[in-house]
Amino acid sequence: MDEKDKRPKPRLARGFRDVIGADLVARYNMIETIRKVYELYGFMPLETPTVEFADMLGKFIQDTGLPDEGIFSFKADQPDWLALRYDLTAPLSRFVAQHKDLPKPFRRYQIGSAFRIEKPGPGRFREFIQLDIDTVGSASMAADAEICCVLCDAFDALGLDGMFVVRVGDRRVLNGVLQAAGVDTKADGGITSTRVMRCIDKFERLGLSGVAELLRQGRMDESGDFTQGAGLTQAQAEVVTEYLKASGESRKEVCEALRAIVGESEEGRSGVDELVEIDEFLTAAGYDERKVVFDPTIVRGLTYYTGPVYEASLIEQNGRFSSSIAGGGRYDNLIERFTGQKVPATGASIGPDRLLALLIGLGKVSESLLAPVLVTQMDRAWAKDYQAMTFELRRAGIPAELFLGKASIGKQLKYADQRNIPLAVIAGEDEFASKTVSIKDLRRGKRVASEVSERSEWLKHEQTQETVPRGRLVERVIELLAKYPDG
Amino acid sequence: MDEKDKRPKPRLARGFRDVIGADLVARYNMIETIRKVYELYGFMPLETPTVEFADMLGKFIQDTGLPDEGIFSFKADQPDWLALRYDLTAPLSRFVAQHKDLPKPFRRYQIGSAFRIEKPGPGRFREFIQLDIDTVGSASMAADAEICCVLCDAFDALGLDGMFVVRVGDRRVLNGVLQAAGVDTKADGGITSTRVMRCIDKFERLGLSGVAELLRQGRMDESGDFTQGAGLTQAQAEVVTEYLKASGESRKEVCEALRAIVGESEEGRSGVDELVEIDEFLTAAGYDERKVVFDPTIVRGLTYYTGPVYEASLIEQNGRFSSSIAGGGRYDNLIERFTGQKVPATGASIGPDRLLALLIGLGKVSESLLAPVLVTQMDRAWAKDYQAMTFELRRAGIPAELFLGKASIGKQLKYADQRNIPLAVIAGEDEFASKTVSIKDLRRGKRVASEVSERSEWLKHEQTQETVPRGRLVERVIELLAKYPDG
Repeated sequence: MDEKDKRPKPRLARGFRDVIGADLVARYNMIETIRKVYELYGFMPLETPTVEFADMLGKFIQDTGLPDEGIFSFKADQPDWLALRYDLTAPLSRFVAQHKDLPKPFRRYQIGSAFRIEKPGPGRFREFIQLDIDTVGSASMAADAEICCVLCDAFDALGLDGMFVVRVGDRRVLNGVLQAAGVDTKADGGITSTRVMRCIDKFERLGLSGVAELLRQGRMDESGDFTQGAGLTQAQAEVVTEYLKASGESRKEVCEALRAIVGESEEGRSGVDELVEIDEFLTAAGYDERKVVFDPTIVRGLTYYTGPVYEASLIEQNGRFSSSIAGGGRYDNLIERFTGQKVPATGASIGPDRLLALLIGLGKVSESLLAPVLVTQMDRAWAKDYQAMTFELRRAGIPAELFLGKASIGKQLKYADQRNIPLAVIAGEDEFASKTVSIKDLRRGKRVASEVSERSEWLKHEQTQETVPRGRLVERVIELLAKYPDG
Repeated sequence: MDEKDKRPKPRLARGFRDVIGADLVARYNMIETIRKVYELYGFMPLETPTVEFADMLGKFIQDTGLPDEGIFSFKADQPDWLALRYDLTAPLSRFVAQHKDLPKPFRRYQIGSAFRIEKPGPGRFREFIQLDIDTVGSASMAADAEICCVLCDAFDALGLDGMFVVRVGDRRVLNGVLQAAGVDTKADGGITSTRVMRCIDKFERLGLSGVAELLRQGRMDESGDFTQGAGLTQAQAEVVTEYLKASGESRKEVCEALRAIVGESEEGRSGVDELVEIDEFLTAAGYDERKVVFDPTIVRGLTYYTGPVYEASLIEQNGRFSSSIAGGGRYDNLIERFTGQKVPATGASIGPDRLLALLIGLGKVSESLLAPVLVTQMDRAWAKDYQAMTFELRRAGIPAELFLGKASIGKQLKYADQRNIPLAVIAGEDEFASKTVSIKDLRRGKRVASEVSERSEWLKHEQTQETVPRGRLVERVIELLAKYPDG
């Protein structure tokens, strides 16, 4: 085996990725905007570790069917299994259970990576950031309504006013509908409810008729693959599709329609009461139907939700909803699993990856990395002078870098170009003799090149380099940078 | 087994921790300050995944002796081993090797968690954040000097001017010293060099005589434990201790002393030349001996360093150095291991955990979380009015929260107190009848309580609650908050 064969080929693990430069700056800016909205509502920051004991996380991922397989788990120097967190809610529950004296209601936000072993796809990674807000210790629907308000304010702050909608469903209403249809939702340990939920979760993709098929025996798709159904009878499935069609001009009207469908079911009625309360709170706070709607097709995938569930999407040009940019719900039993005591909780998570791609597409988030000014090196004899210029610029608050390495001025300017550097400082024999310095505006050159087509015109404009007294370097750089503030 | 026994006890995995509230805000503020300095020098942000193929990371951790044991590793749905990154340098090397067309020199910074299975201790966790800067593709000592400048500027920006020092050593000088002492540093594959390095790394703790013992056969500590030595002869060890004592008034003088010790060794001489170049660069840029010193006892633990190494510490009141707050060095071979081509690189990492503890101790970083104003609820009948007040405050940019839940005003104020809330808004029958609102200044109450000892004086000052017209709520809250801007 020769040396070459022993070398590892540089590669990313499956489903993971690198993010660099402008994309990352855009993400930082977006997160900062959202974080400020969270803090405006009194949410305080928390960071829990990336690694938890596996039994702290529980088994709540639904997508894979076989939950444990969806989680990265391992052992270190102790017998207990460890795992990478798959969301930020399970660690929050562990934290709250561990600190019983925490002042409640406890509003916290958390920003961090979560990990799932999923089939990777476009925009779907095995490590993804979540921006979570949760209120623990309040059973009031005001807490749920507030979560919807925070989401709306965050999207407004990102410049998406009028382009998104938060849709709200309720798990108890769904259970009530099943009970009204004659399904005993408790006898089977909730399995039928869970199956029905999974069918409804496919509403956006399959439409009402597709879901209706799935609710019964199952459904064959175009490729001939058969998906097992939830096993409802024809009559039962009809009640559920009635429910899915429930709509109205206002949130109030949707509530009335739902109340009719849940009939005598106590759970269903109290679910509708929850929605009525949320509507009242939202209306009083000025969040109307353009921002938050009630939508029975919203169920959310995770099994731990117990009441209202929320999902935010952008409204696309064809009037359809984009895939979810945020989601959440009430989970009153998640902390109880540790303590035996009911601790009501509700919250939501913004998935910034998808959101960021949309924001960049819409030009709604600044990607501008403050690219530095490049101080080029003509001759190492003047190395200390070049260095002095670089530090002068930095001390004036201007990002600047000295070209490090041996390369012709041409190559140094090519490097500047690749780096999207706005200005290059150049000084050689002439400049040092006359106590001046030259500044080349690389952006202006680019702009001219993209705006003019005639070569004669190009030549007229191509004066992108100027020479100024050495003492005016910093001043002139500031003036030039101010000319095209967006780079 | 009863229900209770089945419940998992909420607990953190060994060596991991939660960070919350003010501590986290202090960390965010510190990171933001450092990030801005990095960007001022033209470093661009990169984020690599937390999980990498294990062979991408290599085996460079020295502390454990058995490198693989220091790393969290596991498999997912593929045969190759995965691992949590143990630093940010190995992933950078993988990234650079993977993107051969990257414009070079490539200056990047990265902020992220790294993971090691170490014995946990005070301030020593298995997940820790690193703030890295590296310059890849420049063999120039200007790049190394620049890294020292960035560290100095970052610490200055954090308010530590005059309180820290960056110490610089050089691996090639050390090898030269060993060669001058007659050790064949290449014949044994570098094992003797590595052992000597490990001895020197204990200098701060053991002092010169302790290290001198370790350099030979070994050393028995007070508890009777014997530590195996590096196996040098008496004469060889003496050369090394001479080297460790090399000092001078200036960096230049240290270089002269080192030049005498390395004698005819070519590697040693070129190591000294490196330090001379770094000194010239630093001096020209205005970083004198109060900021950066040359110190032969600095070697750094990782095996991959090939030239200059840096370590920053705070200077404690007794003149000793605090444990390291930043460290790094040149690693010219790390990328070669993937590509077969030499890609010179140098960089450093700030360890923010230790630094943050020091900064908080010195009062040098703002921990003030913008604690929200609490709008209390006297009676649910006025729920919508309370809610309106809350939103009015938020829309004026004032963090505010509505108390969610059922509790007496007393309990609500106790909650406000636990949360360090500055102001509470209170409105009951009287206020609603007279179209007013009451504001209780919780900070003023606390201040008075801590400043006055006499009960009579206390009573005189205790007017911490006032009633204002409802329409003046926002205006008055802003005035009151401005009174004690630090909470």
